[in-house]
Amino acid sequence: MKKMINNPDHVIEELMEGYIIAYPEYIRRTELHQRALIGKKRNPNRKVSILIGGGSGHEPAFIGYVGAGMADGVAVGNIFASPSPIPIQAVTKEIHNGHGVLYIYGNYAGDLMNFEMASEMTEIEDEIQTAAVIGNDDVASSKDIDDRRGIAGELLVYKTAGAAADFGYDLEEVRRIAQQANDNTRSMGIGLSPCYLPQTGKPSFDLEDNEMEIGLGHHGEPGIEKTTIRTAKETVQVMMQNILKEGLYKENDDVVVLVNGLGATSQMELFIINKEVDAILKARKINTYKSYIGNFITSMEMGGFSVTLMKLDETLKSCIDHPVDCPNFKEV
Amino acid sequence: MKKMINNPDHVIEELMEGYIIAYPEYIRRTELHQRALIGKKRNPNRKVSILIGGGSGHEPAFIGYVGAGMADGVAVGNIFASPSPIPIQAVTKEIHNGHGVLYIYGNYAGDLMNFEMASEMTEIEDEIQTAAVIGNDDVASSKDIDDRRGIAGELLVYKTAGAAADFGYDLEEVRRIAQQANDNTRSMGIGLSPCYLPQTGKPSFDLEDNEMEIGLGHHGEPGIEKTTIRTAKETVQVMMQNILKEGLYKENDDVVVLVNGLGATSQMELFIINKEVDAILKARKINTYKSYIGNFITSMEMGGFSVTLMKLDETLKSCIDHPVDCPNFKEV
Repeated sequence: MKKMINNPDHVIEELMEGYIIAYPEYIRRTELHQRALIGKKRNPNRKVSILIGGGSGHEPAFIGYVGAGMADGVAVGNIFASPSPIPIQAVTKEIHNGHGVLYIYGNYAGDLMNFEMASEMTEIEDEIQTAAVIGNDDVASSKDIDDRRGIAGELLVYKTAGAAADFGYDLEEVRRIAQQANDNTRSMGIGLSPCYLPQTGKPSFDLEDNEMEIGLGHHGEPGIEKTTIRTAKETVQVMMQNILKEGLYKENDDVVVLVNGLGATSQMELFIINKEVDAILKARKINTYKSYIGNFITSMEMGGFSVTLMKLDETLKSCIDHPVDCPNFKEV
Repeated sequence: MKKMINNPDHVIEELMEGYIIAYPEYIRRTELHQRALIGKKRNPNRKVSILIGGGSGHEPAFIGYVGAGMADGVAVGNIFASPSPIPIQAVTKEIHNGHGVLYIYGNYAGDLMNFEMASEMTEIEDEIQTAAVIGNDDVASSKDIDDRRGIAGELLVYKTAGAAADFGYDLEEVRRIAQQANDNTRSMGIGLSPCYLPQTGKPSFDLEDNEMEIGLGHHGEPGIEKTTIRTAKETVQVMMQNILKEGLYKENDDVVVLVNGLGATSQMELFIINKEVDAILKARKINTYKSYIGNFITSMEMGGFSVTLMKLDETLKSCIDHPVDCPNFKEV
């Protein structure tokens, strides 16, 4: 393990400090909890507040998606571990505006437990109404949709929910639109090389030098198959087959394409991957409405990537078109 | 070497295709040359045009910095190799607006030769006036400033030049301001792990498992010293000592801070590095006017990073404050 850090026990506090120092106009601490961070750029039209969060190690997620048109606050967990209910409650109390708070998080046991507990605490102790949308876009993680993990597709759910909140909708309507975004979104990932956990120095998974893992989760959860490494074209064909066989994306549909790097995979490769995704969509006469190519939700220095599609209706298009302003995620 | 590509001989054409497919509103091809790409978002105030370019493998550079407030066109080279004069001439002919073209490129033998040849060709054959600013921010590469390589600091020169062009200045004034930006900029890099060249499969440099290289160039050029890996704090201290001993950055100065990841170094690490940079600047009472933290000019999947400072005067501040709109580099 080769990491440019100081003390492995302090990486979370130090990365938060380095982030806040870089972008003080976007985010601040709250006295309520050191793992609770609050956005500074709130659209005055916004009634409902958006709270995101999850484990650390996915930078710029989740901290980087607090900003205008996106989340109002973030609860920060340990590496690949859910935040506890206490910072979630702290963020909720600080950002709620009398109109309720929407929680958006991934479908992982720890996140489910902690966000649900925080929701109960804030409703009983603080009389703040909450709702939740739980990301489950990873088609490789289970045949049963309710058991699927949330991976990069959550970025598009944040963007949709943030826009709906900026439009001034109430909690139930923001939740409904964000849930629709989630329901229209499918992803699949590929692992090429592991990341290393700072405290243990252990790799997140094992692969031979010539192997890749199809369907790998973004904490290194096992995928569908380990194979020898294939070309970008062959790999994307397998991924798109799995995404398209869901039956959600049809001729003349408009979709968002998200090619997300996990950390160590080069931008050059992500662009080549996008070319292959596009060829398959064009062959099916599915229209790409917008593309996002980059490292949006990483797994530290893991090698690999995911491909995500989100099907758009008119409401979701208006949300995707809505401007956002986060330090490294801006649309004008 | 584990890369998600198709044919190693076609990576440049395929990455260009994948990029243009993703961002068709930003960039287009020209019939004049397949390695010549032209921007679509030009400020109507802009007289002078900006041409950037260099070797591939630095994505999102250089292609990704064609956009509003930045470059008008890019000449694309092979991996870590300068573009030939032909695409540089092609871009020049396509983007010039009767007011001349400013070339910005790094101080490498191949780039110098090819951009100078292109400049002569366009002046003689096409009667287009050109000027050049040559990035040489890497303090580790030579004691003699004229021999220094250009690394991540070029991003700030693009931004400055783009703003000056948008302000409607003439070629000499845009060149002068961009040269000032370059003269006020110093960088230093660290290598942790090599990238692999697609066609040869060879690593860009060799390091032991517990080693890092201080002062490494962003194509793997040798640095000052190989040492066992140190903490972020110790490493940044060495880098900042080398940058600050130039005598350019003094108490009460305003600076831009750029922490640039080379590819495989995690965002988490970059934020921790930024914390250490900031501590040293605060101790010297140097003010951070703006921070950029991310993978802006990479070396494919190389592990490592650089730190850049640019000292600001009022003109450079107005340039840094000017909005830009590139696919993954936007400021509102």
